[in-house]
Amino acid sequence: MAEVHATRRDRLRERCAAAGLGAALVTRPANVRYLAGCAPPGSALLVGPGSEDILVHLRTPPDDQGESGPDDLRSTVLPSPDGDAAVAAASLARERHAGSLAVEEHHLTVARHRAIGSVADALPLSDLGGAVEQLRLVKDEHEIAALRIAAEIADQALGELLESILVGRTERHLALELERRLVDHGADSAAFPTSVGTGPHSGTARHVPTDRRVEEGDFLTVRLGACYRGYRCEVGRTFVIGTAPAGWQIDLYDLVFNAQRAGREALAPGVACRDVDRVTRQPLVAAGHADGVAQWSGHGVGLEIDEDPQLSPAAMGKLDACVPVTVEPGVHLPGRGGVRIDDTLVVRPLADGGPELLTITTKELLAL
Amino acid sequence: MAEVHATRRDRLRERCAAAGLGAALVTRPANVRYLAGCAPPGSALLVGPGSEDILVHLRTPPDDQGESGPDDLRSTVLPSPDGDAAVAAASLARERHAGSLAVEEHHLTVARHRAIGSVADALPLSDLGGAVEQLRLVKDEHEIAALRIAAEIADQALGELLESILVGRTERHLALELERRLVDHGADSAAFPTSVGTGPHSGTARHVPTDRRVEEGDFLTVRLGACYRGYRCEVGRTFVIGTAPAGWQIDLYDLVFNAQRAGREALAPGVACRDVDRVTRQPLVAAGHADGVAQWSGHGVGLEIDEDPQLSPAAMGKLDACVPVTVEPGVHLPGRGGVRIDDTLVVRPLADGGPELLTITTKELLAL
Repeated sequence: MAEVHATRRDRLRERCAAAGLGAALVTRPANVRYLAGCAPPGSALLVGPGSEDILVHLRTPPDDQGESGPDDLRSTVLPSPDGDAAVAAASLARERHAGSLAVEEHHLTVARHRAIGSVADALPLSDLGGAVEQLRLVKDEHEIAALRIAAEIADQALGELLESILVGRTERHLALELERRLVDHGADSAAFPTSVGTGPHSGTARHVPTDRRVEEGDFLTVRLGACYRGYRCEVGRTFVIGTAPAGWQIDLYDLVFNAQRAGREALAPGVACRDVDRVTRQPLVAAGHADGVAQWSGHGVGLEIDEDPQLSPAAMGKLDACVPVTVEPGVHLPGRGGVRIDDTLVVRPLADGGPELLTITTKELLAL
Repeated sequence: MAEVHATRRDRLRERCAAAGLGAALVTRPANVRYLAGCAPPGSALLVGPGSEDILVHLRTPPDDQGESGPDDLRSTVLPSPDGDAAVAAASLARERHAGSLAVEEHHLTVARHRAIGSVADALPLSDLGGAVEQLRLVKDEHEIAALRIAAEIADQALGELLESILVGRTERHLALELERRLVDHGADSAAFPTSVGTGPHSGTARHVPTDRRVEEGDFLTVRLGACYRGYRCEVGRTFVIGTAPAGWQIDLYDLVFNAQRAGREALAPGVACRDVDRVTRQPLVAAGHADGVAQWSGHGVGLEIDEDPQLSPAAMGKLDACVPVTVEPGVHLPGRGGVRIDDTLVVRPLADGGPELLTITTKELLAL
C-alpha cells in the first residue's frame, strides 16, 4: 500500500506544479488519510516542496491512536500538545523555501488560517480548493475492494436482523443491534448513525431512532453502513411487518422500487449526475409525491459517507468509471410513513458489465 | 426553558453592545444549541441587531431533525438545500442595517467566511471569538441537573457491566455493551466513544477498543459517558481481573487514586486551573511516571465533552462556582498497562459543601 499513497501524493504534486503552487498543506482528515495512509488526530500533511513530504501530528501513544502510522512517509511529532500541526507544517514549508503554500480554505477556520499566515511570514498562501477531493473521486481497485467488504458486512448485519423477531422492539434497540453486528462482522465502526424508522417514521432519510416499537402493519425502514479500513458504504431497505402488506404499501413500494431501478440502470461513465437524479426522481414526482421526496437521489461514497459526486437537480459534472455512488430514492407520507431503498454501486462501463452492485440484500418487499 | 435561551441571548447581546458590535452570527453547533435550544444540521443563529434574533436552518422534516425546534425564537427555512444558513443570516443582518457583524472565526472556514463577506457587502465583519464559549463556562441549575442525570446513567451502565462475566470478552464487545446500556437507561447517545482497555491497553486516555480479550490478572480501564439533553459527562475506572491484584497493581492504583483525590479536593472557586493540574500531576511525576502521564489532568464538560476550562500546566484562569470539570489522572506503563480514574464534578464553594461529585461509582480497587 505504501506506493499507493506515494503515487497519490505525486499526482497532487503534479497538480500543484501545473497550478504554479510550491507546496500543499493538507488538513482535512479524509484527505490526509487518502494521501498518507493514516490521519492521527490533529495531524497535517505537507506535500512538497520537492518530494520531501512530511506528516506532522500530535504526540499520541500508538495504542491511543487507533491507526497505524504512515509507512512510506517522514513524520514528525509536534512538540507541544497545545500546538497546531498545520502551523508547524507551514513553518517547515517556509524553512524549505516552498515559494508558496496552498491550504484547504474549505476546511481551515479563519483563526487557524491567520495563525498559519503569521508563521508562513513571507510565504504567500493560496487556496488548494478541492484538489484532493477531486483526486479521491475515482477509486482504485484497493479502495473498491475495501468498499466491497464494507458492503458485505452491512448485508450480513442486515440479513441477521431479518431473521430475528422484530415486533415489539424499539427503533433504538434495532439500531444498536445492527451497529453491534457490523462490528462483530469486522467493521471498524458504523459508517454513519444507523437509522431505523417504523410506521410513521418509515421512508425518511435520516430518522433518528426513537423508543417507538415495531407494530403489525408497519413499514420498517432501515439504513446502515459499515466502515472498513476507512471506506464507507450504505444500504437501505424497507420492509412490511406482518403477514401481508396493505394495497397502498404495495403500490408505494413498487413506485420507489422502480424509481430506484431506473436510477441504478442510468449509472454509466459519461452520464450527467443530474440526469441520474432526474430519472430517479421523475416517477416519484409524476405520482404526486414531489413534497415527500428528498432533495438528492444519491451521492458518492468513499473515505466519507457523503462525498462527490452529488446526484441532485443542481449537480454539475458527469459520472466516471470506478466512481462509487449511492442510489437512494424515497417517499415519506406525513403521518403514514413511506419507503426508501438505498444501494451502493460502482459506475462501470457496459463493456465491463455495467454498474457493479455492492449491496446485494434483496429488494423484493419482504413481509416480516 | 424558553426564557432560559432568551436570557442567554440577552447576555450575548449585552457583550456585543459593550464591544460595539451590531450583531452576532453564531454557527458553532454547541453555541447555537446553547442560545436557541436546538441546533438543526447546518443552522445559523443571528443575534441582533436589536432584539430580533432569528435561527436560519435547512428544510428538514421534523422527524428527520431529531431535535425540537426553537420554542421562543423566530426561525426561517433556507430556500435552497445547497445554501449556507450562515450566508443567509448575514444578508438578513445587512437588510436590518446591523452596522457590523461579529462571526465565529474559530469555527467558520475561510471559504464560508468569504461567502459571508460577499453578501454582507458594506457590513464590516469582526471576530466574535469565544464569547459564547465564555457564557457557557458557568452552568445554571438546569444544565447541572442534566449533567447529574447523565452521570447517573453512566454509573448505572458501568455498574451493570461489573455484575457480568468479563473474562474472555473483547474490548470491542464490552464497549458496545456499555453504549447499549447507556441508551437503555435514557441517554440520547454516548457522550464520546466508549474506551475499554485491557492488560497492556489499560491506563491510557483514548484507547480505541480492539479484539483483545479480558484475561486473568489484567488491569481493565473503562471510560464512558452519557449524553442527556445534550449535556455530556465522563466517568472512568480501572479494575483488576481475577482473585487478587498483584503488588505492583495495588501500588500503582493507590498512587493514581491519591493523585485523583488530591485533584478533586483542590477544586474550589478562585483556584487556578493550573494548580489543580499541579496537585494532581505532582504525585505521579514524583513517583517517576512523568512520561506515562497525560498532558492534562481534567477539563470542563457541558454541551461538549471537552470544553473550557482546561486543567493543564499551561492553563490560564481560575475556577468559578458551578463549573463542571473532570479530574482524570492516569499512568500508563508501556507493555504492562496502567490505571486511570475519571470523575465529573461541579465546583462549589466550601459553604455549599465543596465540590459536588456527579459520578459516584466506587473508586476502591475492585477485583472482578
